[in-house]
Amino acid sequence: MARIDGRRNDELRPVKMTTNYIKNASGSVLIEVGNTRVICTATVEDKVPPFLKGTGKGWLTAEYGMIPAATQVRKAREVTRGRPEGRTQEIQRLIGRALRSVINTELLGERTIWIDCDVIQADGGTRTSSITGGFVALVYCIKSLLDQGLIEKSPVTSYAAAVSIGKVNDEILLDLCYDEDVVATVDMNLVMTEKNELVEIQGTAEGSPFTLQDLNVLLELGQKGINQLIQYQMEALGELNCLVGQGK
Amino acid sequence: MARIDGRRNDELRPVKMTTNYIKNASGSVLIEVGNTRVICTATVEDKVPPFLKGTGKGWLTAEYGMIPAATQVRKAREVTRGRPEGRTQEIQRLIGRALRSVINTELLGERTIWIDCDVIQADGGTRTSSITGGFVALVYCIKSLLDQGLIEKSPVTSYAAAVSIGKVNDEILLDLCYDEDVVATVDMNLVMTEKNELVEIQGTAEGSPFTLQDLNVLLELGQKGINQLIQYQMEALGELNCLVGQGK
Amino acid sequence: MARIDGRRNDELRPVKMTTNYIKNASGSVLIEVGNTRVICTATVEDKVPPFLKGTGKGWLTAEYGMIPAATQVRKAREVTRGRPEGRTQEIQRLIGRALRSVINTELLGERTIWIDCDVIQADGGTRTSSITGGFVALVYCIKSLLDQGLIEKSPVTSYAAAVSIGKVNDEILLDLCYDEDVVATVDMNLVMTEKNELVEIQGTAEGSPFTLQDLNVLLELGQKGINQLIQYQMEALGELNCLVGQGK
Amino acid sequence: MARIDGRRNDELRPVKMTTNYIKNASGSVLIEVGNTRVICTATVEDKVPPFLKGTGKGWLTAEYGMIPAATQVRKAREVTRGRPEGRTQEIQRLIGRALRSVINTELLGERTIWIDCDVIQADGGTRTSSITGGFVALVYCIKSLLDQGLIEKSPVTSYAAAVSIGKVNDEILLDLCYDEDVVATVDMNLVMTEKNELVEIQGTAEGSPFTLQDLNVLLELGQKGINQLIQYQMEALGELNCLVGQGK
Amino acid sequence: MARIDGRRNDELRPVKMTTNYIKNASGSVLIEVGNTRVICTATVEDKVPPFLKGTGKGWLTAEYGMIPAATQVRKAREVTRGRPEGRTQEIQRLIGRALRSVINTELLGERTIWIDCDVIQADGGTRTSSITGGFVALVYCIKSLLDQGLIEKSPVTSYAAAVSIGKVNDEILLDLCYDEDVVATVDMNLVMTEKNELVEIQGTAEGSPFTLQDLNVLLELGQKGINQLIQYQMEALGELNCLVGQGK
Amino acid sequence: MARIDGRRNDELRPVKMTTNYIKNASGSVLIEVGNTRVICTATVEDKVPPFLKGTGKGWLTAEYGMIPAATQVRKAREVTRGRPEGRTQEIQRLIGRALRSVINTELLGERTIWIDCDVIQADGGTRTSSITGGFVALVYCIKSLLDQGLIEKSPVTSYAAAVSIGKVNDEILLDLCYDEDVVATVDMNLVMTEKNELVEIQGTAEGSPFTLQDLNVLLELGQKGINQLIQYQMEALGELNCLVGQGK
Repeated sequence: MARIDGRRNDELRPVKMTTNYIKNASGSVLIEVGNTRVICTATVEDKVPPFLKGTGKGWLTAEYGMIPAATQVRKAREVTRGRPEGRTQEIQRLIGRALRSVINTELLGERTIWIDCDVIQADGGTRTSSITGGFVALVYCIKSLLDQGLIEKSPVTSYAAAVSIGKVNDEILLDLCYDEDVVATVDMNLVMTEKNELVEIQGTAEGSPFTLQDLNVLLELGQKGINQLIQYQMEALGELNCLVGQGK
Repeated sequence: MARIDGRRNDELRPVKMTTNYIKNASGSVLIEVGNTRVICTATVEDKVPPFLKGTGKGWLTAEYGMIPAATQVRKAREVTRGRPEGRTQEIQRLIGRALRSVINTELLGERTIWIDCDVIQADGGTRTSSITGGFVALVYCIKSLLDQGLIEKSPVTSYAAAVSIGKVNDEILLDLCYDEDVVATVDMNLVMTEKNELVEIQGTAEGSPFTLQDLNVLLELGQKGINQLIQYQMEALGELNCLVGQGK
Repeated sequence: MARIDGRRNDELRPVKMTTNYIKNASGSVLIEVGNTRVICTATVEDKVPPFLKGTGKGWLTAEYGMIPAATQVRKAREVTRGRPEGRTQEIQRLIGRALRSVINTELLGERTIWIDCDVIQADGGTRTSSITGGFVALVYCIKSLLDQGLIEKSPVTSYAAAVSIGKVNDEILLDLCYDEDVVATVDMNLVMTEKNELVEIQGTAEGSPFTLQDLNVLLELGQKGINQLIQYQMEALGELNCLVGQGK
Repeated sequence: MARIDGRRNDELRPVKMTTNYIKNASGSVLIEVGNTRVICTATVEDKVPPFLKGTGKGWLTAEYGMIPAATQVRKAREVTRGRPEGRTQEIQRLIGRALRSVINTELLGERTIWIDCDVIQADGGTRTSSITGGFVALVYCIKSLLDQGLIEKSPVTSYAAAVSIGKVNDEILLDLCYDEDVVATVDMNLVMTEKNELVEIQGTAEGSPFTLQDLNVLLELGQKGINQLIQYQMEALGELNCLVGQGK
Repeated sequence: MARIDGRRNDELRPVKMTTNYIKNASGSVLIEVGNTRVICTATVEDKVPPFLKGTGKGWLTAEYGMIPAATQVRKAREVTRGRPEGRTQEIQRLIGRALRSVINTELLGERTIWIDCDVIQADGGTRTSSITGGFVALVYCIKSLLDQGLIEKSPVTSYAAAVSIGKVNDEILLDLCYDEDVVATVDMNLVMTEKNELVEIQGTAEGSPFTLQDLNVLLELGQKGINQLIQYQMEALGELNCLVGQGK
Repeated sequence: MARIDGRRNDELRPVKMTTNYIKNASGSVLIEVGNTRVICTATVEDKVPPFLKGTGKGWLTAEYGMIPAATQVRKAREVTRGRPEGRTQEIQRLIGRALRSVINTELLGERTIWIDCDVIQADGGTRTSSITGGFVALVYCIKSLLDQGLIEKSPVTSYAAAVSIGKVNDEILLDLCYDEDVVATVDMNLVMTEKNELVEIQGTAEGSPFTLQDLNVLLELGQKGINQLIQYQMEALGELNCLVGQGK
């Protein structure tokens, strides 16, 4: 059965990354995955959370937002309601955890990198696009720290990219768009490195449980998609690819 | 290498469930998993969220809390800070999603079941214990709805229990206590049914990514633990076991 | 006229105190007064509020909470609404004031004792049970400070226990359960010491004012109940009774 | 020993009430008790809280505030901190309860009277002055409802006035000013009717417990003060005194 | 066409200022402009915002509030809703900016002056009355700083008074009362000095745009009103007029 | 003296508008004014605020936000702090008021248009760019309502564009960039129509008051800039220009 937008089951949507998209950020990228568009920025703050003070180690944290018109129906600003909703907190914790796991915080020194992911258009996969794009912004930000002589060696240990996979009408599909996502019976997000190692796996049965066999197919498809996304990251990084892997 | 508390790598902590623990709730259980103790209650509210009004379908939602002295260092009440923290929201979304996936919301009718999980002592695995205990409270609550003639058939489709598995010092361990959890390099939570189907899988690399081989061992051990936990659920349910599976 | 649960007008409900109920707290007790059950814990924090810094004096403060299923109808978590309600603040101020009045804050040194009272089942008298149970948790906590050599002498000056008294159908009753409380025309809470001295008196006319004669009967009955409650405290404290009275 | 301001132990501060102080309110009074000045207003809202809908009964609720410069040191606005503090909530619950106890809510009909007490200068006794002044504003508001033909009979059942009494340097004093209040070892607030009946009694030991003998002296002095305050209320009400007592 | 209250188009309402209205504030005034009544106070705090620390410069900030009964229909307290509304924030930013522009912050030294404007009765022009009255409170506060020897020279550079002007039924009117304000098609607030210099101009078309010719008439009338208001300020300041102008 | 970026005093920065920038919004534009970039969207909601229900009239409201990396130093998200800051509220009130004044709310019918202005890069003039760009998004949104047959006639009465003008080093400059803005002694924002009518004027003395002569020069320069901006709006609207002016 053909997909809504005519893709094969194992096919990513078109991906485009525009680097240095925001002048004021040390690293920034506009990532577009089909109709999903996210501005990812990386900025540096010269302090760390209390539990790291005096340890010599740095921190990376992420925040995620959406402009109100990003979704099909206008979504009220979170500040208007006074608090971030659970979904937002879950996503920003995921992004932070995923990217933190590919940096050596000792090499970063006592500073915090803020990864901000602001969705300007949403069509499924905003959290995975945020991770994939956020990684690129992160490496540009590291380059800026090196250029300023603030750190001596890149703390980045490996690539990290993310993709969604799901089960829709009993078929396992790669990179779900919004209309596929809402009818999926299994919804999975994978974050992996260039060596096919897992950084994060989150799979949820929507409606009815799924088998371990399903899990294997989901993993296989996800792995394939991530390999391609890492190729896109490499293209967006150009000369900066040499900064990845130094942090080990 | 022996575990902190002398357990084998594939051994659960002692599990105890005291049912009907809270007089005012339709269903309630005090679940104790080692030193972790959680009061799980299920109560019914005669309305559903706006998006379900008029659909004939019900809803299940979960909330999670901790008394301040539950943790090793007293933890400030969330209300004192004015908002639930991200971790809390993530956990209550997980509990709700997991238990919602084993009920047939059409059979439930237009009402909401609230699963409240209040941790009175925390020693690792509070979210998984909440799901395992919450399931038992849920079935007792269903019994009460049936007894009152409010529903005709149990909406419960299968058992659901949860366990944590992790990698500590290169060993894969079942059911981590707090001291193991803080040093784990991989942290995974599994929710499964009595048929070894997956309801939810969440695995996170803490520090360095993990391989797909690791994932398989984690899944195997988790599956074993969940089978045992479902045995405990069956003991706690007694005659009410007949209510599980009717909802399909 | 017999009371709802068959008690005499001057009769307390059955009281049970389980000490050391929460492993992580320096002092803890599960107090049960009829169907009312409150977990009281006492924990120590190594700092004091700003107005006490440098004075050598300590502080005691209390917080009060309820699990949602404690009441007959599920009560929404306060954090969900974003702020503690007035009733909660009033109760926690009362508990703090009452227990603070029986410790010598100079002997305590510059540290704060947190008394947390978490109601897991509510059937009237939760604030008075919190004080009576909180006192026992406090003394256990003091014992722990002495054992660690952090203080040299117990700062506890006297016992403090609390009870409710009320006027229902023109009869003055001791220790109201919830069903009595809602129909009471006078509602009083008393906190007293083992010497029949007053720590706090709060009496409220619900509906119509009451006479000074009524007040005397209320005080007499309350005094009787408190004497009994202090007996229960003494049993729960055992060897630790020697710590009470040193602080004068 | 003479008091700070030369008063006898059983002497009130000078009391002045300016009625119809705020044009837009149905009832209003500026009450001055020594240097304490409170604007009390009573306004009517044509709805009741949910639990009273359809019962035919009305409601009375109170709110209490302070302008920042009312206190010796400027006090930050509560809205700036995002929530009312515990003290404020306690006071407004007391004012509401006290005045509610002298109106017949059935005669009021399904409407809510808001009593707002805004302290513009604070020198002790702001909560008791709020009650004493709030009562006068309430009766003016009732007059307005009668004049508009919205109610047929005054729902006010009796006078209600409030005063503070305390123990300072072992002397029992009536109507404490701020400098006396901060050194008092016993602090009591009394609300009574013109028949010396109690509406509310709140007594607190600050530092050390007090005896039942003390309580009797406190009550005697308080009763004396309240009798005088009710005289002042009668003067401020003039012709409106006939509205008090009809509600029985 | 005659105005609602019979005034000429270029006529201010009666203005009255009662200085030293609040005992605890360094400077205070009750300003009455027709039925609009605002308590303005100026208090000093011995610290400055972070961005001024160590600069030797001071700060002036303003807050604005209303008692609930100030308006024709009771207005809920902002603290009850948890946050100041946009209108309040806009007004307090305006007051602060206006008065800050007539003090030399270097002569003030590293301290903050808080201008609190609390409206006790509202009939249009509350923000402009707050500025006009706030200026007088400010100068009294400066006098107190000089008297205490905390500053050596008055930092006040010029007078500042404010007035509203508007277009109602095609006529340009000075000092709109509430009933005029709600039907105005142009609404302007002006803050000026005694030399007819502008401190702030805010003009808004309500409904349909206005011409530059209108603007000139509005300015002319506003200037006239401000000249008169500064005369009232001079009367209220008496001997303190010598403190104005020193700060240049 | 040359300006920072070499412009003449009366010269706008380069302006670019990309229409239909956000797929999900009825109207949208990315406006770029020099380095300032704002995404403006217009979406429709089928309800109006309570005070308009049943009047047949519509409403227009605006919200304003910034992504954290928009500014030179990363700015914390407002939701993280729990409330919009005063500056944000002031800006969104201004945008809403300005655009509301050029639509005929009766022709709009009972619906609300939301104008969202999200700054993705800030270099001065974000509020004026929001108005200029917001107007274009508004007209596209009106087009969509007409196309759907929801309204019969365009409610837009005239163009509205905005610009900042200021006094820097005694020179009056058009369209201040951030570095000019921070040193300006007078800061003015103007909103005008294509007929040189005023919609809003806001002028503030930063530091020292300004003369009426200055005001005239500021107005002249502003008028010139707005004329040019309306040219840019006309280019961005193309065929849609016919929708402007129908609403009169």
